[in-house]
Amino acid sequence: MPQKKILVIGGVAAGTKAAAKCRRESPDADIKIVTDEAYISYAGCGFPYYIGGHVRREQLEVKTVADFRTESNIEVFTQHRALSIDPARKTAAVKNLRAGGSEEFRYDVLIIATGAAPVMPLIPGHDLKNVFTLRTIDDAMRIGALTGGGAKSALIAGGGYIGLEVAENLVQRGIQVTLVEAMPHILPRFDEEIALLVQNHLRENGVRLVLGQKVAQIDGNRSGEVSGASTDNGEKIPADFVLWAAGVRPEVELARTAGIEIGPTGAIKTDERMRTNLPDVYAVGDCAETKHLVTGKPAWAPLGSTANKMGRVAAINACGGHDTFPGVLGSTVVKVFNVNVAMTGLTEKEARAEGYDFETVIVPCRDKAHYYPGNEFVTTKLVVDRKTRRILGGQIVGRGVVDKPIDILVAAITLNGTVDQLAKMDFAYAPPFSGALSPLINAANVMLNKLNGRFRGISSLELKKMMEAGEDVQLVDTRGAEQYAAGHVPGARRIALGELREKSKELAKDKPAVCICNIGKTAFAGHLILRNAGFKDVKTLEGGVTAYPFGLEKGAKK
Amino acid sequence: MPQKKILVIGGVAAGTKAAAKCRRESPDADIKIVTDEAYISYAGCGFPYYIGGHVRREQLEVKTVADFRTESNIEVFTQHRALSIDPARKTAAVKNLRAGGSEEFRYDVLIIATGAAPVMPLIPGHDLKNVFTLRTIDDAMRIGALTGGGAKSALIAGGGYIGLEVAENLVQRGIQVTLVEAMPHILPRFDEEIALLVQNHLRENGVRLVLGQKVAQIDGNRSGEVSGASTDNGEKIPADFVLWAAGVRPEVELARTAGIEIGPTGAIKTDERMRTNLPDVYAVGDCAETKHLVTGKPAWAPLGSTANKMGRVAAINACGGHDTFPGVLGSTVVKVFNVNVAMTGLTEKEARAEGYDFETVIVPCRDKAHYYPGNEFVTTKLVVDRKTRRILGGQIVGRGVVDKPIDILVAAITLNGTVDQLAKMDFAYAPPFSGALSPLINAANVMLNKLNGRFRGISSLELKKMMEAGEDVQLVDTRGAEQYAAGHVPGARRIALGELREKSKELAKDKPAVCICNIGKTAFAGHLILRNAGFKDVKTLEGGVTAYPFGLEKGAKK
Repeated sequence: MPQKKILVIGGVAAGTKAAAKCRRESPDADIKIVTDEAYISYAGCGFPYYIGGHVRREQLEVKTVADFRTESNIEVFTQHRALSIDPARKTAAVKNLRAGGSEEFRYDVLIIATGAAPVMPLIPGHDLKNVFTLRTIDDAMRIGALTGGGAKSALIAGGGYIGLEVAENLVQRGIQVTLVEAMPHILPRFDEEIALLVQNHLRENGVRLVLGQKVAQIDGNRSGEVSGASTDNGEKIPADFVLWAAGVRPEVELARTAGIEIGPTGAIKTDERMRTNLPDVYAVGDCAETKHLVTGKPAWAPLGSTANKMGRVAAINACGGHDTFPGVLGSTVVKVFNVNVAMTGLTEKEARAEGYDFETVIVPCRDKAHYYPGNEFVTTKLVVDRKTRRILGGQIVGRGVVDKPIDILVAAITLNGTVDQLAKMDFAYAPPFSGALSPLINAANVMLNKLNGRFRGISSLELKKMMEAGEDVQLVDTRGAEQYAAGHVPGARRIALGELREKSKELAKDKPAVCICNIGKTAFAGHLILRNAGFKDVKTLEGGVTAYPFGLEKGAKK
Repeated sequence: MPQKKILVIGGVAAGTKAAAKCRRESPDADIKIVTDEAYISYAGCGFPYYIGGHVRREQLEVKTVADFRTESNIEVFTQHRALSIDPARKTAAVKNLRAGGSEEFRYDVLIIATGAAPVMPLIPGHDLKNVFTLRTIDDAMRIGALTGGGAKSALIAGGGYIGLEVAENLVQRGIQVTLVEAMPHILPRFDEEIALLVQNHLRENGVRLVLGQKVAQIDGNRSGEVSGASTDNGEKIPADFVLWAAGVRPEVELARTAGIEIGPTGAIKTDERMRTNLPDVYAVGDCAETKHLVTGKPAWAPLGSTANKMGRVAAINACGGHDTFPGVLGSTVVKVFNVNVAMTGLTEKEARAEGYDFETVIVPCRDKAHYYPGNEFVTTKLVVDRKTRRILGGQIVGRGVVDKPIDILVAAITLNGTVDQLAKMDFAYAPPFSGALSPLINAANVMLNKLNGRFRGISSLELKKMMEAGEDVQLVDTRGAEQYAAGHVPGARRIALGELREKSKELAKDKPAVCICNIGKTAFAGHLILRNAGFKDVKTLEGGVTAYPFGLEKGAKK
């Protein structure tokens, strides 16, 4: 039997994973990787932390060409660009970017892992020195050199994960950061009230936010270096360099011209085995499309975690085995200074756009026992299908641990779990790790109260709208004087829970009332007292002042 | 309609939760709690951390009698002991321990939350001063006072969670700790190789372990204070005080004498709605039995987390609603100095005892990106049903984050997830939170390799046995010289992976070979090289030296 030829186009996560797994599946195969990059395997997600000085240069390069040769008997061709694929002859034309000249690579199986590239619009000044995207080790090193060498200010275009991670790391290096986001809030995939909490924290840490505006032009000085930028609104922003981090797009031109089908997301269409429409041709990683596990629709999730899984699946199938990659939930997590924020599944706005009949809750809770040192609040937002009670999605934000509960939700959503099941899960409990009822159990219980008609909540966004519309709503803060003075919703009157039975007489029973406390628990007790006292329209502010993103008033006015 | 009378016997987690939830469900009910304790609601799980000085006394008391009155309109009777229940007349006879005298409490619904009590055998010296169990605030305060006031050494009987947590906190206060465990290893519910890793860490931190022995007698001085203890093996252990932490048992006498059925675990038998065999009588918390979700058998899980959930379910049912508590997985987590260890579902020995046809893996993995500061190893052991591929249980140990993966497993096991599903879950990824492939995904992938016949592992226990039996096995350490010198399995010969193809000629193909590296990954690559070179019996040491609990050899001997 002739030696099976496996060709992988593209390195980094998906390509190298696919090649290495092919080696383990097929000890005798001829396995080659070609990549137009200078490095075969690097930790792209670590670039922000290299810029911040937390990661050393040598840690960014995960494996070398020599490693692949000696450890896995895989031949790697860096700075080799695949120009075209001939599916009929099963060949790829590959250009040597270093030495020049082209060569034809034969394959029995082809795995395409061409990745994604940052989107950089051709606005005036885009070609100035010190305008960067962040894709390669060289990009990271150039930005790193600037931050240690004279640059005092930076403009970041894009309020997504990379923009936020780099913003934090630049601030830590003493750089003044202005972040420009075209959408009305940063983290555009998140629901507004969650993103606003992160925005507040960015501002607390000195990041200037310019929202709802686009960078229209980058300005330069006489040496062709960046001096600043202007937004489409005419705002001038001084900056010594610009990082363009406004999204990436899949690199699919090689595939497209070879007749490989592109899906509606713009990435390469694949089936569950990571096969393209061409026989013996697979696509994996940031260039490949997959499925959203909640909606069942095509999805594109350019992330190292997905890339690794896809690479493994393609390799097993390419070597005659059988494996499937069922899809993604769009899970994501990001650290922004001392706040963490994560999501999985559908947000409220996505659930609405998809036409679900859903319910939401917003519930803050401490991440560890309330007495254990270092415990912090996290605020959980759940989105649940009203009819099936299936969990559709979750978002979690706060100074505490968010990655743990979001990954629990990942498991629950993947396995079609309901909020009823979530509420009863036997999560491991000890004070250094959790309260007796974890943030997810608490959120699930509030959701059950809501679905069962026991609890009526109002979100911070809805309350803000009511107040702006001048509606006559009685805001009742049920906390003690000290907590009230530390920060309350503007206009709230303080009536401590213990006095509410008595003092409810001073309120109007026929007017709407909203009870407010730290997290919603005491307020809900007050809510029940008022309802029991004959108040017709009572609600609890979901998430209390902890999750209220619009600014609190201080002092003991009332 | 007459006011519904709800009587709760017992406070703390389950009793107070049940009462508070009853109030929210039934605004008009007459709700009373009687407890023989001095405090109605306290953070028992925080006692070890109070002893260590991490938690203040006032943080231990969660809510007062006055809080229940003003906030929830619940009347609490502390230091009132329920002596008997008359189910026919629906009354309980209650003795006032403070003032003396008895009173009859009527009820429409009775919720029994009598908890559990430490087991203290009546060995000689058990009644000496300074022999403690750790159940009440007063116990914690007495031990706390001793540690700050002259005590230099302590004996802890019992190597379970409380014993370990207190051991850590006493060492931090400068106390010399000897821990005596009757079983051959601490954490007796865990599998041996996991528990041994924790044992090693306890010893590194100066805790003396006396294993496989029982405390037979506690010795005192002339003032009736503890001076030490003797084991059944005749070993003398000096100690200024003794903490007896060798398990708890459910407090069920009140229930039993009232004709309430006790289950095979010794706790009160309940159905999914937390009902006992008597009409309108519920049991919740540490005194109540539930079901194991994997085996379906009766289970007893005395933990605050379970107590809270049961309390809520009983309250909803007691007030005319409908809710169920499906059962537990025996989940647990404990911090021991800088190591964390957790489990859920079945261990290997439990799976064997239950007659499952199962497979196991042991896989170390970093908890964050390998370059992100502060990343640490955790070692995951999975137990999977071979036929259904359903996950039966997991144990995770290490300096890194263990509570997150264990709770993900809780969700996966609860929802009948398979290891195939686990391997593809879209966990949230960013360097501060996870590697691109998380510890669970890695462990699941190794399990898939094993189930699919691609991977043959050997556990540290099996290898130790082979070596002790004098079997002629070739140990091949596939790492570099530096790593080898830092610690290798005694008798292992170093052949770096890159040289293995060549140097395999120096090994005997017809003798068994075991490949060893840090975590099992490089060794597996070596394993495949040897198999490919014609070696007949090759295995990989699962978990590598990272999870090898029997002591490593240092130096570059070979």
